Amino acid sequence: MKKIIVLTQILVMAIIPTIAQQFGGPEIISPEIHNDNRVTFRLHAPNSNEVKLMGDWLPTQGWIPGTVNLVKGEKDIWLHTTEALPSGLYTYTFIVDGVKTIDPNNAFVQRDIANISNIFLVEGGQGDYYKVQDVPHGTVTRRWYNSAGNGKARRMSVYTPPGYEEGKEKYPVLYLLHGAGGDEEAWLTLGKATQIFDNLIAEGKMKPMIVIMPNGNVWQQAAPGEGRKGFYKPQFMVPNTMDGKFEETFPDIMRFVESNYRVKTNKANRAIAGLSMGGFHSMHISRYYPNTFDYVGLFSAAILPDQDVSHKVYHNLDETLKRQKENSYKLYWIGMGKTDFLYGSGKTFMAKLDEIGFDYIYRESEGGHVWKNWRLYLTEFLPLLF
Amino acid sequence: MKKIIVLTQILVMAIIPTIAQQFGGPEIISPEIHNDNRVTFRLHAPNSNEVKLMGDWLPTQGWIPGTVNLVKGEKDIWLHTTEALPSGLYTYTFIVDGVKTIDPNNAFVQRDIANISNIFLVEGGQGDYYKVQDVPHGTVTRRWYNSAGNGKARRMSVYTPPGYEEGKEKYPVLYLLHGAGGDEEAWLTLGKATQIFDNLIAEGKMKPMIVIMPNGNVWQQAAPGEGRKGFYKPQFMVPNTMDGKFEETFPDIMRFVESNYRVKTNKANRAIAGLSMGGFHSMHISRYYPNTFDYVGLFSAAILPDQDVSHKVYHNLDETLKRQKENSYKLYWIGMGKTDFLYGSGKTFMAKLDEIGFDYIYRESEGGHVWKNWRLYLTEFLPLLF
Repeated sequence: MKKIIVLTQILVMAIIPTIAQQFGGPEIISPEIHNDNRVTFRLHAPNSNEVKLMGDWLPTQGWIPGTVNLVKGEKDIWLHTTEALPSGLYTYTFIVDGVKTIDPNNAFVQRDIANISNIFLVEGGQGDYYKVQDVPHGTVTRRWYNSAGNGKARRMSVYTPPGYEEGKEKYPVLYLLHGAGGDEEAWLTLGKATQIFDNLIAEGKMKPMIVIMPNGNVWQQAAPGEGRKGFYKPQFMVPNTMDGKFEETFPDIMRFVESNYRVKTNKANRAIAGLSMGGFHSMHISRYYPNTFDYVGLFSAAILPDQDVSHKVYHNLDETLKRQKENSYKLYWIGMGKTDFLYGSGKTFMAKLDEIGFDYIYRESEGGHVWKNWRLYLTEFLPLLF
Repeated sequence: MKKIIVLTQILVMAIIPTIAQQFGGPEIISPEIHNDNRVTFRLHAPNSNEVKLMGDWLPTQGWIPGTVNLVKGEKDIWLHTTEALPSGLYTYTFIVDGVKTIDPNNAFVQRDIANISNIFLVEGGQGDYYKVQDVPHGTVTRRWYNSAGNGKARRMSVYTPPGYEEGKEKYPVLYLLHGAGGDEEAWLTLGKATQIFDNLIAEGKMKPMIVIMPNGNVWQQAAPGEGRKGFYKPQFMVPNTMDGKFEETFPDIMRFVESNYRVKTNKANRAIAGLSMGGFHSMHISRYYPNTFDYVGLFSAAILPDQDVSHKVYHNLDETLKRQKENSYKLYWIGMGKTDFLYGSGKTFMAKLDEIGFDYIYRESEGGHVWKNWRLYLTEFLPLLF
């Protein structure tokens, strides 16, 4: 044992100071989540004049994210402690003299479009669904398929439930779509979908199912950095987004899934749901292919006010919705936040559904167009499927 | 089309300003890679006194990373332009008045232990192996298995080559191990292993194979944030690292792989390789289970000076190496950088091999204990397998 310890010590002595040096100061814990769910943030900034914290639990002013100032304490460490936070997943960054920066003491970050933010989790409630628990785990795969309709190879993320590989059973399938600026990584990283699936299945609240998370931007092969375009600055809207091409070529994805995974291939075992642009996609795909999905979920959906658009996918909205109603379905679930900027267009869409006599469940939550709501909607929607 | 455009504009107008605001200033391109491979970095920092760039292409002083000062230019944008850089993958961060920060205009980051850094790629040479090219792509899976020897579920990353899902063929398998502070994500993110596999296979330089990237820290279930321990500050050395437990329980991994994937299960179709601690693990596993691997790769291996250690795995080093030699093998490949702090212990180990008459290939490269070398070694090692 002696010599191994010696070697370990050499490694530690050689490398740890480099790392400490990179962190630029004393050993710091940030964020520190206290037992009462208050959270303390710390940043060593000896030569800065102002350190702000931008966090998604802070009150916003319209679209302007909420910020709060840190106060400089001992040893040039700036501090802020929150009130007790409800259980959940949170994101934040620092702004040091006007420069946005991540917390150098928090190794956990997420990319949202072109923004990197830190994350932390407050346990003891809804947040527990977003945590890796000691339960059986499904498998997550990044898989390429050929999209004939788009003339290129594209990438999707696939969740198969615990036991999939060992068994012979066929499973129902949920197609879960991201919003504008998202990609096939979004539900996994920002949405904590894997954890939600594993935890709901373990609780017996969700039927084991296969979940397909495709890339809804047909201009992209894959998430930024994961396709042949290489590294570029991700944009909120990319070409060929919400122009009918994704909906039109959606059968490429279904054909691939139904010939490559053990899935049940009837309407009763197919669901489609998505957030924002993905809600728009889900609405259009489910009525354009009208006898295909028994379960539809629209999370803060960016629903088009009417059908005055050029691509044939968007034609005959009322007529196809009526056909979807006549063909019947089991669940049409709409979730929307009270302060969402799409609240009004959601109401307009529901008025249209009411006119047609098209049944749906409406879930109105607090808050706006944010991942907090989409993670919540997903946890509520999944138990209703199959 | 009109109404969709209107909706898109609403979305863009509503959300883009928030994002621009989060970036804290004018639209900036950073890094900008010029046609001649010089790279310009830019940071909007109106109220800062000093902005440094820390990059892995800059000359180091011992273990101290190289830095260079940015110069404040027009519109409060600080700038630095490098000399032409050789093709490759690079990492960097800014240091603003002593606070380490990522580049807010670069959405591509990697975690190395507890450090988040930005990355960029210079094409036109070795770097092309690290890029997603327009070639057939393998599948990458995060999969959980039961480690009986460690009494817990653990996570591994698996690469299956293009065509695996469609065929019935059996493949050779490479076990590819990370270093101290790494995990089952390290070769994929820092090592760009998926891209290297896809590109080498497409060029016909590498035989299609399955590559297993397990987690070598048996104290962990999975990479930080991906196991039940949740989010915590990742450390360079964690308990039960290099103490024999990983090597001893390695057959748990092999059994899982051989009963869950179409792999050839004889010595001629098994390889094991790793970097630093993973090189140490590869050396010990390949001699402790002496008739198991025909191909062994030690990349900047942290080889123990002698066998004076307590765990039975580390006993009888000379004897088991001799047995490994007698049982024969096809390739024992050692790569080391000239300035690696493990250079001396590598030489000591090779002297022992020479004494025994144990054949190996030695590849000495420029530079030290860095990912630049491990990506290079992997590209050179893979074509020699099977």
